[in-house]
Amino acid sequence: MSQLKNRIEQHIEMIATYTATPGNGTTRLTYSKEDLQTRNYLKEQMQAAGLTVKEDGFGNIFGKLEGSNPDAPSVLIGSHFDSVPNGGAYDGPAGVVAALEVANLFQQHNIKPTYPLEIVALVEEEGSRFGGGLMGSRGITGLLREGDFYQLQDKDGISPKEAMQDIGLDPSLPKMRDPKTMKAFLELHIEQGPILEEKNIPIGVVESIVGLTQYEITVKGQAGHAGTTPMDKRSDALITAAKIVSTLPDFAIKEGNGTVLTTGQLNVFPNGSNVIPDKVIFTVDIRSGEEENVRHVINQMLQCVDSHQGNGIEIDVEEKLYIQPKALSETIRNQLKKQSENCGITFCSINSGAGHDAMVFSDVTDVGMLFIPSKAGLSHCPEEWSDVAHIANAVEIFYETAKQLTEAK
Amino acid sequence: MSQLKNRIEQHIEMIATYTATPGNGTTRLTYSKEDLQTRNYLKEQMQAAGLTVKEDGFGNIFGKLEGSNPDAPSVLIGSHFDSVPNGGAYDGPAGVVAALEVANLFQQHNIKPTYPLEIVALVEEEGSRFGGGLMGSRGITGLLREGDFYQLQDKDGISPKEAMQDIGLDPSLPKMRDPKTMKAFLELHIEQGPILEEKNIPIGVVESIVGLTQYEITVKGQAGHAGTTPMDKRSDALITAAKIVSTLPDFAIKEGNGTVLTTGQLNVFPNGSNVIPDKVIFTVDIRSGEEENVRHVINQMLQCVDSHQGNGIEIDVEEKLYIQPKALSETIRNQLKKQSENCGITFCSINSGAGHDAMVFSDVTDVGMLFIPSKAGLSHCPEEWSDVAHIANAVEIFYETAKQLTEAK
Repeated sequence: MSQLKNRIEQHIEMIATYTATPGNGTTRLTYSKEDLQTRNYLKEQMQAAGLTVKEDGFGNIFGKLEGSNPDAPSVLIGSHFDSVPNGGAYDGPAGVVAALEVANLFQQHNIKPTYPLEIVALVEEEGSRFGGGLMGSRGITGLLREGDFYQLQDKDGISPKEAMQDIGLDPSLPKMRDPKTMKAFLELHIEQGPILEEKNIPIGVVESIVGLTQYEITVKGQAGHAGTTPMDKRSDALITAAKIVSTLPDFAIKEGNGTVLTTGQLNVFPNGSNVIPDKVIFTVDIRSGEEENVRHVINQMLQCVDSHQGNGIEIDVEEKLYIQPKALSETIRNQLKKQSENCGITFCSINSGAGHDAMVFSDVTDVGMLFIPSKAGLSHCPEEWSDVAHIANAVEIFYETAKQLTEAK
Repeated sequence: MSQLKNRIEQHIEMIATYTATPGNGTTRLTYSKEDLQTRNYLKEQMQAAGLTVKEDGFGNIFGKLEGSNPDAPSVLIGSHFDSVPNGGAYDGPAGVVAALEVANLFQQHNIKPTYPLEIVALVEEEGSRFGGGLMGSRGITGLLREGDFYQLQDKDGISPKEAMQDIGLDPSLPKMRDPKTMKAFLELHIEQGPILEEKNIPIGVVESIVGLTQYEITVKGQAGHAGTTPMDKRSDALITAAKIVSTLPDFAIKEGNGTVLTTGQLNVFPNGSNVIPDKVIFTVDIRSGEEENVRHVINQMLQCVDSHQGNGIEIDVEEKLYIQPKALSETIRNQLKKQSENCGITFCSINSGAGHDAMVFSDVTDVGMLFIPSKAGLSHCPEEWSDVAHIANAVEIFYETAKQLTEAK
């Protein structure tokens, strides 16, 4: 166990050095120099664990331990290895490293699976370079079509194809993968929230990944001079936006059941201290484990917005994203809980408030997901931290579960 | 009258061609090529009106008609000739052109003043190049000290001294002017608000220039993931800011008496759609003709802010600017009203919601100010428009008033 913890720590520390912002968190954009460094490290480690390494036409990395039945579908374990700008060392890598160490345990204990075991390291989950997010898993499962993939661009107008070629990747390799080749997908991820830490429980077995919707709301009013426009002649876009933004969270609080609502982005135009704002654009992010709760809050939001129309104020509402809640495989959830018990590791059920690659795979195969505590609930920042002992717990549980799923001897 | 309107129109049109952004409004920064073009035009026109032209060490332009008592203080008429970026053709030039045409009427009717008449074209009222604003008038009246003037810089680090020399001006010329040399200052300006147009009144006699205060309020909370942070664990800086921003205008509305309050600028950090904001910085601009009203609204604002402190929210309040309201000379106001009546021009009393050079001169001499309607109340934009017939009205009123003030024969 102590040796496993040491190995995990070394992986995490090594991968953390592959950042474009040393001293200021992890910045590892997809197909960047830091992607290539991490990719080379992971491929070496996979090979050292006795895996056969392949990449696909998105740059996702697969390390395969053949099963005694080579045509059987694989049990996949993995996560992503990109980061947000100035993010942490655990969001993504913790899950990739855990998967790698499961393969190491297979090798160490000379385990011969019937179904193949595949360790997966996915690209562009965060969407920090090409937008949208979950690109690697959406590509594998066919949710992102090849044509749409080629249309993507980063902020400098560079396409994924050009960016891949720049670091020596081959975009012409196979892309979408036949769902029949996948038996299950397991993912470890940091919780990115305060629940496990507060309950002092080292493992969360994810029951469902919340439904998520994102709206962009544009409030248009009339600009005017801050000194010369009487209060009763104003159509101030910011006052209206502020009234809406300060009202919306109450809908989620009243809805309960873990429903959350966030306005994270808000931009004011023209944004001069002595000019009445004529336009404000803001986002609304609504999430809940139950679709009914998401729908209900959306309706209340739309009614709230409607009540602010008129008197020179015009409000447009655009739905940018709608993802239904996903319940993860009950069979695998039960296996994970049983193996936690067997290993003597305390666990609890938890919902995931963030989207994950596991959510995408759950459309095409059985999915199981574990969470470990995040210090102070923080993520996407240099302070992001999780305990390597908790990652080691997850490796143990996944090792036992993977032996079962691969029908190993 | 028709001839006067034509002359005014020609001046306005000619000066509007001196812009760095043709087709996209007037951009005439102080000491720019467009400043030099306008300067040369105004100096020619002043000379043609029989005035003796001088510049001072700030680049302000003075065209003087000597009085029969040459040592007597001057009656000044004028405004500024700089613009904001992509501004209009009237904010500033309307007042300079009106002053020029008063001098023309003196010449045309061979009027011999006892006190000298001086037409003034002021630099950098808008502060668009060197910040702060009212630079020309603050320089003349000694409010801007010579040492501070030399310390100024534009966004490229160029000092006023270098910039002046670049267009052939002499920064070593005299700067501050002895208040004893000024008997009165008259300024015409566009209203920049909707009041005169809505009342359909062509002339506003300005009673006072409002007091103005600007605050910067910083709300600090705790960032977190939009999906994984429960609603009751949040310290959302934007929700708090939105509550404050949407409450503040009510204080001004209840205060009445023309009190206005504006949040024009608001910036959210880190401003990502799935991150709970940890910082919001916004401005509050409060104006009223009575200092008591400004003070009262400030107190209510501070109480409101205080009530939102705590629960992980920390709010800092910084006063960036405080200018007392300025009542303009009652004697000159009465003269302006009487001359309007004599000329058969309808007028009303009005307060100025914006700061003006007249406000600065009112510290050292008697000041009178006229407003003309702004189409749709718009200013600081290419759509800014005022009727040349209204400028001509102001010229008539100023001509009669200047004859009185200069004790012309």
